[in-house]
Amino acid sequence: MPRPADPAGALSELALELFLEHGYDATPMSLVAQRAGLTKAGVYHHFESKEHLLYVVHKRHIEQLLLPLIDDAEREPAAEKRLRSFLNEYALLQTRDPSLRLLINEAKRLEPAHGAEIRDAWRRGVHLIRDAVAEMKKDGRCAPDLDPTYAAFAAIGMCSWICNWYDYTRPESGPAVARTMVDLFMEGLLRGKSSEWPR
Amino acid sequence: MPRPADPAGALSELALELFLEHGYDATPMSLVAQRAGLTKAGVYHHFESKEHLLYVVHKRHIEQLLLPLIDDAEREPAAEKRLRSFLNEYALLQTRDPSLRLLINEAKRLEPAHGAEIRDAWRRGVHLIRDAVAEMKKDGRCAPDLDPTYAAFAAIGMCSWICNWYDYTRPESGPAVARTMVDLFMEGLLRGKSSEWPR
Repeated sequence: MPRPADPAGALSELALELFLEHGYDATPMSLVAQRAGLTKAGVYHHFESKEHLLYVVHKRHIEQLLLPLIDDAEREPAAEKRLRSFLNEYALLQTRDPSLRLLINEAKRLEPAHGAEIRDAWRRGVHLIRDAVAEMKKDGRCAPDLDPTYAAFAAIGMCSWICNWYDYTRPESGPAVARTMVDLFMEGLLRGKSSEWPR
Repeated sequence: MPRPADPAGALSELALELFLEHGYDATPMSLVAQRAGLTKAGVYHHFESKEHLLYVVHKRHIEQLLLPLIDDAEREPAAEKRLRSFLNEYALLQTRDPSLRLLINEAKRLEPAHGAEIRDAWRRGVHLIRDAVAEMKKDGRCAPDLDPTYAAFAAIGMCSWICNWYDYTRPESGPAVARTMVDLFMEGLLRGKSSEWPR
């Protein structure tokens, strides 16, 4: 039996393409309708507003791309391996997916309840890093005065910034970019290891 | 003798306050005029469009806050000291200035020529980091396979991301945040120093 059609999903994918092509502001609902071969009322049957459409685009993107990375990483019991693996996959995702830049930049358009839901998903990634750093710090593997929350935002920031400068016409450079981010962060975290500070 | 009045400068400061309060989209030129006690024509006498106003806001901000940091850093001949000092000052600036978030996010609204001019100023910061890293690498102080450009974007990213999470109601935490960014990056860069790789 074929899978039931998912018109809202297909429309949100089309909308994301149009946002990427024209920008969010310059993509009216009428253009989404026109490209989908629907009337405007046909689009509003699935999304009550353009903001609602943006929210669905965000939600699908997070569910399909970000949450699986977090779920995978959380299955790894060793903190350092969990952290390395998540950061590498997240940085690779940034090099593969130019739409993250649009989504990050337009997240502020979401209504408060939608914005909070999307931020909660991103926060899971920050907490995954923070908790792994805290575990490594407890084991005496990081500087004793390191703040795991600040460190988590440092890691998320260096990786999330990739979408602001990465050349998406050179996808073969993605693994080297991801490795640089992971190595710089992990070596900074594990600096000097046991020898440099008193226990 | 009093300094000559700078009505365009005063208007651009007022506009930045309104952008921060209401968002860029929700700040019409008529509101800028109303708050300034001018007619709309009075505002358009100084700025030919809202985009032009945004450009002037960017340009003033960069000239007053970013370029002095770069100029100061460039006077330091030692690469490591230059890099530490610039990153620390740039991270501190992020913790002190909530308007950077708005400017970074709205930079895409600038017309191509204006956007290119603003990006050139930011690029000076990236090049300052890249060149310092390249110098340290040449002296055998970084991993021999490190790409100085990727490293520069890692540093700019971790510091520029601060405006996305920093709690501006707790300015006293700024120096600790900046120190965390600088320490993580610099230790990551200088990892293992001479012992871990062949010369």
